[in-house]
Amino acid sequence: MSSFQELAPFLAANWPIVCVAVVVIALVYFLSMKSEKQKEKLTPKENTKIPSPQDKGEHPLSEFAEEKQDPNEAPPLHDANTAHVLFKFERLPEKEMMTRSRDFYENLNQRRSIRFFSKDLIPEGVLENIVRAAGTAPSGAHSEPWTFVVVRDPKIKLQIREIVEQEEFTNYERRMGDKWVQDLQFVKTDHVKPYLEDAPAIILVMKQQYHIDENNVKYPHYYFEISTAIAAGMLITAIHVAGLVTVTTTPLNAGVALRELLGRPSNEKVMLLLPVGYPADDATVPDITRKPLDKIVVFK
Amino acid sequence: MSSFQELAPFLAANWPIVCVAVVVIALVYFLSMKSEKQKEKLTPKENTKIPSPQDKGEHPLSEFAEEKQDPNEAPPLHDANTAHVLFKFERLPEKEMMTRSRDFYENLNQRRSIRFFSKDLIPEGVLENIVRAAGTAPSGAHSEPWTFVVVRDPKIKLQIREIVEQEEFTNYERRMGDKWVQDLQFVKTDHVKPYLEDAPAIILVMKQQYHIDENNVKYPHYYFEISTAIAAGMLITAIHVAGLVTVTTTPLNAGVALRELLGRPSNEKVMLLLPVGYPADDATVPDITRKPLDKIVVFK
Repeated sequence: MSSFQELAPFLAANWPIVCVAVVVIALVYFLSMKSEKQKEKLTPKENTKIPSPQDKGEHPLSEFAEEKQDPNEAPPLHDANTAHVLFKFERLPEKEMMTRSRDFYENLNQRRSIRFFSKDLIPEGVLENIVRAAGTAPSGAHSEPWTFVVVRDPKIKLQIREIVEQEEFTNYERRMGDKWVQDLQFVKTDHVKPYLEDAPAIILVMKQQYHIDENNVKYPHYYFEISTAIAAGMLITAIHVAGLVTVTTTPLNAGVALRELLGRPSNEKVMLLLPVGYPADDATVPDITRKPLDKIVVFK
Repeated sequence: MSSFQELAPFLAANWPIVCVAVVVIALVYFLSMKSEKQKEKLTPKENTKIPSPQDKGEHPLSEFAEEKQDPNEAPPLHDANTAHVLFKFERLPEKEMMTRSRDFYENLNQRRSIRFFSKDLIPEGVLENIVRAAGTAPSGAHSEPWTFVVVRDPKIKLQIREIVEQEEFTNYERRMGDKWVQDLQFVKTDHVKPYLEDAPAIILVMKQQYHIDENNVKYPHYYFEISTAIAAGMLITAIHVAGLVTVTTTPLNAGVALRELLGRPSNEKVMLLLPVGYPADDATVPDITRKPLDKIVVFK
């Protein structure tokens, strides 16, 4: 039966059997699709996400479903009998509040996303202070669900560049779609990212879905995505306050490869990738403005 | 043919026809499931989310599918020919970088989440500066996908309190589950939130899935959830720098009612709710510490 012509008489003669076989195959296939679909609902694979311009709604508790230990059995994150103490606070004079809030805004308003970096190194200790500042962010049930991976090794920066550029090539070519690419044209950005080698440091902001302690007990983290992004807001602010520059990037589809390159555990996912350093002498920025106050605030 | 006993002989006599019918039904069902599955990937419904301790991965493009206008037909968010200009930058002396980064960390490290507020009003103009600072955050394709709703009207604050307390009662009783409630016991928090009336202002941080301009053209927003959370990180920092306090809350399941109370359009969703003001004289905080640097940073 090497061709369809030879197959046809066999099919005609045995059509009820063929018919039953088709039913069975269709049902098995359908059931396997259904179970796969349900599995997907519970455990979306990090590497099967479809790229899209939207926030990637990851399902943080997904990995619990595959594990034997029920995180509900973990002891509380913090002692339920934690003492409460008086909050020491000193009010600033009203004039000082005005000055500080205005100065802070005016300082932050100088911040721009920079894609052209000098190779000059960052003074020792500054990156530590920047990460410390980010680590003061509030988080769901004080779970502090973040890790900041600071890469200064030129070899690892090169590997990061290779991973990101490879994925970004596909992102721009196929995954992002014409509209998204068009909406980024004003930045003049593409898949080539020399700044990943030029910048003296790259900070990868990792969000932790949960954590496992030294006794192998697993603790759930709450609102870990929002919490880590809030910490990233403080990180970006601290980078600016320290006199350095960065650009906030989301390495679309490169997360797993980056996590593996950095040897980070599977409870962590790459949220953001920030090159940090000084701008190149000839660094340029698109000539755009921010929305005025009345476009971002509503008073009630 | 009112029962299976009457149906059986018919099925036996006509089994090839039945067989074909089953194949057709199975294939149609399978194909419909497949298309539904693909549709789900693109347009998960906002109202089918289950409340959970996890980040609520909202699916920002969902509303597009229900609308007639294709956002892909919108003009670019920014002119593709936007000029690029030299970035003006002055390096700080190394010593100054150390001082500023350390001082900034030490200042932020004084921040605590406060749940007991004085009723004293905030000096005019300070909240404006705080929101301006938040509005300097970076965002996907510079879409600035945020609105800050600042509520000072005592009547609206009362209504917010009623909405939040009603939902929080159900959250604590049923939705959050024992483990989550247990993990929050160290904060001594429950569904009763007097601070929503006491605090002189409540800032609701709204994330915008898209925006519609005055000509009814719809523009997609990119990474609007992460971008808005980063802006919230700057907002929380600005509140602290201005000499005020807050607590970062996620009004679980109260988002739609709050959005409607505030008259905000459906392209916006409540992300965070922050009471802002001075701490009450007897405000207390749980006696907890932050993770040390070596628990949140990895150097490579």
